[in-house]
Amino acid sequence: MTIESKDKPVRAGIVVTGTEVITGTIEDKNGPWISQELAGLGVEVSHISIVADRASDLEAALRFMGDDGMDLIVTSGGLGPTADDLTAEVVGTFAERKMVLDESMEEKIAKILAGFARRLNFDADALRAANRKQAVVPKGATLIDPAGTAPGLVVPVDDGSVVIVMPGPPRELHAMWPKALETAPVREVLDRAEPYAGVMLRLFGLPESEIAKSLREIEEGGVDLDALEITTCLRKGELEIEVRHRPGAEDSLTDLIAGIDERHGRFLFSRDGATIDSQLASLLQGHKIATAESCTGGLLAARLTEREGASAYVSGGAVTYSNESKTTVLGVPVELVAEHGAVSPEVAEAMADGALKRYQADIAVGITGIAGPDGGTEEKPVGYVCVCVKTSDGSKLARDPVMPGTRADIRERSALLGMHLTRRLLLGEDFPL
Amino acid sequence: MTIESKDKPVRAGIVVTGTEVITGTIEDKNGPWISQELAGLGVEVSHISIVADRASDLEAALRFMGDDGMDLIVTSGGLGPTADDLTAEVVGTFAERKMVLDESMEEKIAKILAGFARRLNFDADALRAANRKQAVVPKGATLIDPAGTAPGLVVPVDDGSVVIVMPGPPRELHAMWPKALETAPVREVLDRAEPYAGVMLRLFGLPESEIAKSLREIEEGGVDLDALEITTCLRKGELEIEVRHRPGAEDSLTDLIAGIDERHGRFLFSRDGATIDSQLASLLQGHKIATAESCTGGLLAARLTEREGASAYVSGGAVTYSNESKTTVLGVPVELVAEHGAVSPEVAEAMADGALKRYQADIAVGITGIAGPDGGTEEKPVGYVCVCVKTSDGSKLARDPVMPGTRADIRERSALLGMHLTRRLLLGEDFPL
Repeated sequence: MTIESKDKPVRAGIVVTGTEVITGTIEDKNGPWISQELAGLGVEVSHISIVADRASDLEAALRFMGDDGMDLIVTSGGLGPTADDLTAEVVGTFAERKMVLDESMEEKIAKILAGFARRLNFDADALRAANRKQAVVPKGATLIDPAGTAPGLVVPVDDGSVVIVMPGPPRELHAMWPKALETAPVREVLDRAEPYAGVMLRLFGLPESEIAKSLREIEEGGVDLDALEITTCLRKGELEIEVRHRPGAEDSLTDLIAGIDERHGRFLFSRDGATIDSQLASLLQGHKIATAESCTGGLLAARLTEREGASAYVSGGAVTYSNESKTTVLGVPVELVAEHGAVSPEVAEAMADGALKRYQADIAVGITGIAGPDGGTEEKPVGYVCVCVKTSDGSKLARDPVMPGTRADIRERSALLGMHLTRRLLLGEDFPL
Repeated sequence: MTIESKDKPVRAGIVVTGTEVITGTIEDKNGPWISQELAGLGVEVSHISIVADRASDLEAALRFMGDDGMDLIVTSGGLGPTADDLTAEVVGTFAERKMVLDESMEEKIAKILAGFARRLNFDADALRAANRKQAVVPKGATLIDPAGTAPGLVVPVDDGSVVIVMPGPPRELHAMWPKALETAPVREVLDRAEPYAGVMLRLFGLPESEIAKSLREIEEGGVDLDALEITTCLRKGELEIEVRHRPGAEDSLTDLIAGIDERHGRFLFSRDGATIDSQLASLLQGHKIATAESCTGGLLAARLTEREGASAYVSGGAVTYSNESKTTVLGVPVELVAEHGAVSPEVAEAMADGALKRYQADIAVGITGIAGPDGGTEEKPVGYVCVCVKTSDGSKLARDPVMPGTRADIRERSALLGMHLTRRLLLGEDFPL
């Protein structure tokens, strides 16, 4: 069955406030998070605007969103107790609503704060005064109970659009978001939206320009790519192709995937959006993995243990930054380091061997390389990295490329290469590069 | 000498393009980076706008910036070879300039690509066709040579403002940025800007509401805080206070810092913006540090080795995720784990002891905790973390708090607590909480 596409998409804009965000002191996680949530509901996110804690800038951003016809505006941040937290008031001005004290909310906040003050031994009255302003809200707004101390707001605007006002701390935002979606004004907007369908393909080892060429070929071969929204993105060595479509364009999508598969199947490691992290988590069930890291300094172990449940398959890992520790911790022979150098395929393999044994694992990854910026030579330049994945029954996959980029890039890509080699070895496949 | 403040600040807006950024598929690093660069030059950044790869959205964002009076607009992204890369053309429309092929730039790009194609064994003609569009630019623009394959642009607008068009990959952007600043149209704008001075204070262990209270008290005590721009930000357990001022407000700044120092000096670990990472890098000179991590899974080791030159003081570390590896790798007695549990102050200390010995270090950090979401008990809930820092001569600092937040929060804060305890122990100070 084909569902006809509605004519006018529901559009949204996101305004993230905070001088500390605009100056890069903290990294904004809220814009992308809200954007993904909205996309899943069929809302087209047109703008994410980050503004400093200045009333005039926040107001300008809201007016821009309003003028550009956003049906939904979501703000995050600026609901705290300090004077630079001014979102509620500016949204009130934007929506042309008076500010009023919500007494029952004031009471709720007071109770929350009394608990904090008791536990942390801080002055309850000071806390309460600082936070009273958090209960002053635009008249007619629907209040969302705080997950921290700041309530959220849903503020209807006379032109039919709606502003959702959320706190900045991600934990609070995530807890309060579902409640904002349940309010009547937001439900009314969302009912007009039509969810997109989307797929995400991931490739490892292929340059972006090859995909541009393939997309042109596929289109010349008769596939209607205009029916699809295709975004390609090179991301730390992985190429991601996101394809979104409205109902009715399923055939174009199938043909596009077949075309990419035909040309680049050996690089394509994910057809369902699953990340290498989640693939490894599945593949490693029933196994015990250990890591032996030099230049990556624990990055690979940290990434493997990021996921809950990792203790079922991660035995542990060794960070052997010094030559001595490679020998004392992992049993890498001193002569091997002397003969081939600490950064060599031989030492990477001996590190993997040592990790297998030391951690009683059945698969292990050894990584040694020159992350720079110093330490490179003509023969072994900065970026030269040796990665070896080995199982307790002796099968292995190893590569020693020269990686581009900064110290951070080289470290991240080295850990990523370790993950992809592990995946291929667990699948019994060779690595295509 | 007091320099009079000029009346009208030079204002800038940043437009980051990319559907993959707006959907959160990749994290934007360019907005904050450009913002910091501009702030350092005395430019007031009012807006960072992230837009999807749709011409209409990009155009709307540019018009908004123009209408809100930005003197400088910087775009990043959308200069690649694929059809969704459309920044140059949209900026041309915005600046009311025709698009023209720059033949000498086309030649330069062709040469760069021929090199790539040879090395990577890809089709040179395909690459070149895909990239020809990168040499089509608004008439009258100043071109910046590519660091990758896309040239940058400096495009003057008739109202006296200037648009700087930069590629999205951070490595390319960073390399080309200084050249954009040297062009005549940009220099003309920057000459009108007046650099701010700023300081950054960092505190560990103090809630944000206490600072709000202190700022009110300091102001009531007669310090003119209106002359300063103060931003407070709670960031993963650290509280950052950024204070910026125009020339002439030095006394207010001095008084403010004295006021904070008087009230919260014991929490104040940085008065010059230095991060805990850089402080540790200095304090660890002449030492050898080792890590023994359970719940943090290598995060602390990865963070310590993030900085260049870390090999001078990082011996290495052990990630001992399983109970067995705590014993086999770090020599934690089986009975100790049996008696106190794997998450206990006793095991954290035994892990530090094991790391000191195994890695021949003179200071070591042991971390064991319950990162969740499962595994908590009434006695030891999710978030309960034991951290012990110990030196080879037997001095130690240890804490076992219950940390709030998600698995990722708990892991990050645990590593951070390990860093702060290490700092205090190296300074011979106690830890204030």
